[in-house]
Amino acid sequence: MGAYAKPVEVLIDEFGRLPGIGPKSAQRIAFHLLKADSIDSQRLADAVVAMKENVTFCSRCFNVAEVVESDHADNVANDIQTDETQCAICLDSTRDPQLLCVVEEPKDIAAIEKTGYFKGRYHVLLGAINPLEGVGPDQLKIRELAFRVASEDIKEVILCTNPNLEGETTASFIANKVLDSFEVSISRLASGLPVGGDLEYADELTLGRAIEGRKNLA
Amino acid sequence: MGAYAKPVEVLIDEFGRLPGIGPKSAQRIAFHLLKADSIDSQRLADAVVAMKENVTFCSRCFNVAEVVESDHADNVANDIQTDETQCAICLDSTRDPQLLCVVEEPKDIAAIEKTGYFKGRYHVLLGAINPLEGVGPDQLKIRELAFRVASEDIKEVILCTNPNLEGETTASFIANKVLDSFEVSISRLASGLPVGGDLEYADELTLGRAIEGRKNLA
Repeated sequence: MGAYAKPVEVLIDEFGRLPGIGPKSAQRIAFHLLKADSIDSQRLADAVVAMKENVTFCSRCFNVAEVVESDHADNVANDIQTDETQCAICLDSTRDPQLLCVVEEPKDIAAIEKTGYFKGRYHVLLGAINPLEGVGPDQLKIRELAFRVASEDIKEVILCTNPNLEGETTASFIANKVLDSFEVSISRLASGLPVGGDLEYADELTLGRAIEGRKNLA
Repeated sequence: MGAYAKPVEVLIDEFGRLPGIGPKSAQRIAFHLLKADSIDSQRLADAVVAMKENVTFCSRCFNVAEVVESDHADNVANDIQTDETQCAICLDSTRDPQLLCVVEEPKDIAAIEKTGYFKGRYHVLLGAINPLEGVGPDQLKIRELAFRVASEDIKEVILCTNPNLEGETTASFIANKVLDSFEVSISRLASGLPVGGDLEYADELTLGRAIEGRKNLA
């Protein structure tokens, strides 16, 4: 027997598996829930189950998509998304069908949407190439991206993977090995100084990129 | 509509209510669960519910206690502990009934048990006096402590609340206002330098306490 009653140990263990939660945090959360109302903890448990039942990945762009009523029964039964489940952005006919923004995660879409600058559609890779963690191109939605570029009326692909090693590798792989045979314009997000930032505090790599990518003003 | 599908927003919101989890962590956990197997997320949800159903506070010392089979039905029905539910330590007849260690939280019991130095029983206050957060003596299990000291054969009470403002306040309140009329010996954990610590790195308060509580060697 551990230091606590078995069900508490089990819960600490389950929380400890979540990203960013260490053993101490897991313990704190478990005791918080032990003291909290049963209604509150039930609501948390329900939210987990409801999310898994009612949310899936968009069959087209792999953004998160809410399962509509009619698909629901199939989804619960098969535990995979039905072909019809599309996200709100893919279903939005006012979006520019010629512009495609490729991102790593659904949360990146939220970040880009907040800017209000982009009116095209998205494609979520659900990760980035990371050989150390065993993530290669086959584990990502890259084949699906090639299929979309081949079958949809896409004119420009903006590679919005993260400006780190994994993101850059993924972007260059897609640009040079996947989309090189298609007649689409491929671009990458600009690197440079953050707006409101201070030159003094920029790291040399960022500053180097900012110089490299300098814009003519006249 | 928020940035994500409604069930995802609900889940992020629920995780964000837990202690130590900010909006970004909550989002990260929600997307982790979205990608994870349904079985994994179901196990998390089940662990939350099982913990609330099968674990309660010991009716005597307010440590966590597993609900035994016979009590179970009552517990679920009433959502309060039955009078018979006692923790493993209270039920252990080899424990010294004359020694009582008062702690703030059940997790403190685990810490003290690990030392192997203490063979008495415990009393958990389920918090410490903290006027800023609206926690007064009535919100803690202080009345229950007085009842135990009055009715059980207790000779010594060790106040093991935390060595911070709230813990010290609670300890001095219990020593001077609650247990002052009882014939028990009251002690407090020693303050001083941590074993294996370095004098240079000790804060002045700790060092001051260590000097104040110095021990004669001869």
